[in-house]
Amino acid sequence: MATTDLHTDEASRQGASSCVGVFDSGVGGLTVLTALRDAMPTEDFIYFGDTGRTPYGSKPQEMVARFAEEISAFLLSKQVKAIVIACNTASCAALDKLSRTLPVPVFGVIDPAIDAALVHGKRIGVIGTSGTINSEAYQTRLSARGAHVWSKACPLLAPMVEEGLWDDPIAQLVVRHYLEDAPKSLHSLILGCTHYPVLKNVMSRVVPWVNLIDSAESTAEVVRTALHQKGLANTRGTGAIRHFVTGDASSYRLLASRFGVDTSSVTAIDVADLIVLGQQFAATPQQRMPA
Amino acid sequence: MATTDLHTDEASRQGASSCVGVFDSGVGGLTVLTALRDAMPTEDFIYFGDTGRTPYGSKPQEMVARFAEEISAFLLSKQVKAIVIACNTASCAALDKLSRTLPVPVFGVIDPAIDAALVHGKRIGVIGTSGTINSEAYQTRLSARGAHVWSKACPLLAPMVEEGLWDDPIAQLVVRHYLEDAPKSLHSLILGCTHYPVLKNVMSRVVPWVNLIDSAESTAEVVRTALHQKGLANTRGTGAIRHFVTGDASSYRLLASRFGVDTSSVTAIDVADLIVLGQQFAATPQQRMPA
Repeated sequence: MATTDLHTDEASRQGASSCVGVFDSGVGGLTVLTALRDAMPTEDFIYFGDTGRTPYGSKPQEMVARFAEEISAFLLSKQVKAIVIACNTASCAALDKLSRTLPVPVFGVIDPAIDAALVHGKRIGVIGTSGTINSEAYQTRLSARGAHVWSKACPLLAPMVEEGLWDDPIAQLVVRHYLEDAPKSLHSLILGCTHYPVLKNVMSRVVPWVNLIDSAESTAEVVRTALHQKGLANTRGTGAIRHFVTGDASSYRLLASRFGVDTSSVTAIDVADLIVLGQQFAATPQQRMPA
Repeated sequence: MATTDLHTDEASRQGASSCVGVFDSGVGGLTVLTALRDAMPTEDFIYFGDTGRTPYGSKPQEMVARFAEEISAFLLSKQVKAIVIACNTASCAALDKLSRTLPVPVFGVIDPAIDAALVHGKRIGVIGTSGTINSEAYQTRLSARGAHVWSKACPLLAPMVEEGLWDDPIAQLVVRHYLEDAPKSLHSLILGCTHYPVLKNVMSRVVPWVNLIDSAESTAEVVRTALHQKGLANTRGTGAIRHFVTGDASSYRLLASRFGVDTSSVTAIDVADLIVLGQQFAATPQQRMPA
């Protein structure tokens, strides 16, 4: 593939009829994809699950940022008109840089979650992977807006969800292990990982007094509004979704079906090819798409 | 660093007084390191924990093989006289190739575990990461030796151990989740991941009828015998251990202390430097150390 495909040539072809690209370290971002599809039923989507390199949460930030750039290069090669980082760890590690450098609008999940949490009051908890919590991306933004923050890294939750343990005694015990110290005074708890919404039932039994904040719906609303404002909304699409994964396609299908997402089109991508694409992209000057 | 350092020049300097290099995806290999130290108290060791890229178990084999090559290049740059792959996933992915290509003896953990299991009878279970179980490395070798094999991938166990949950209700429930289908006829169960020995207490309550096979001690015995036979045993070392990790050094110290291993010397290594070292190594013709 010529590197120019990724930049100027493609950018000039991208318009309302193009797909929206969505990516995550694995299946967690499907909670965001579902909200996007519900908010914009006539948009077409590409979902990229980096299942071969999941989890992101325990990896160094610069590594996750490089993964995010490689996946963005891949999505741009598929002519997406916008990119949604449907992963908190990758949003913390890469949103700022990708927003500055990519030729299409880029959306993360952090600010929409914060906006949704502040509706309920200023005492806010946030849970996420070690990468997300240690980056302090949520804590810094919340404090700047006057919130009192309780935070906790929960390294086992995402692997547990990837394993299909969503609402059983194991999930209950592991969630209790992490949340038993949560202050009674919390107004809300941000689920700072896109895997966590499937654990809402369990969490609401463990911390029944807090509002559980899932960034999926608020992120979808932000994306919907922005696409309209930029003249990029597609009113004629069929809601088609194509999936690309770096791990095993059949394992992905099995798990994705539990999210109620159509997985008739799943393509496995070689990580080595993705790395080359990312290197080509990084080496090429980038031109932003006209707003 | 000149690439020649890694090969002929170093190999000719390596002798009995050099260190033994040991590596794993994270802290699990410390169970093997402990057994090595107990079997050879006058040997000096370098332990490399790839904590920045853990876990290996969910990653594609070729990626794990590349990681193993990069770490081997690093260990050779520290003049190790032998390398122990103290990780089942990496042994499955890389032992054959590294044994052929590295200039020092290389040891894995699979065959020692199989030898130890066959002592108890031919009905053998094996548990491990998805990478280990899907590689069928154990199953193929066991079947070739006339064993009847039951196997199960247990993706949550290694992250659970890395999280410090070793002997509590969560560990009990998760172990039960994986082992409740284990046949009553099993003579032994190979703990096909170096993280699992710390779960022995829990496992012996869940499957009290089987002999739990931990490859650490049998691997240590194989290494001890081989070093003696090759004239590489060190009878004058102090049992010093230096640790190198790709993730956070203080988190590593905290978890490693639970394994009873001295971690006074821990150095953090940049993954990017490691990748460069691996590329230099792969590009250089290799010369085996005289046996």
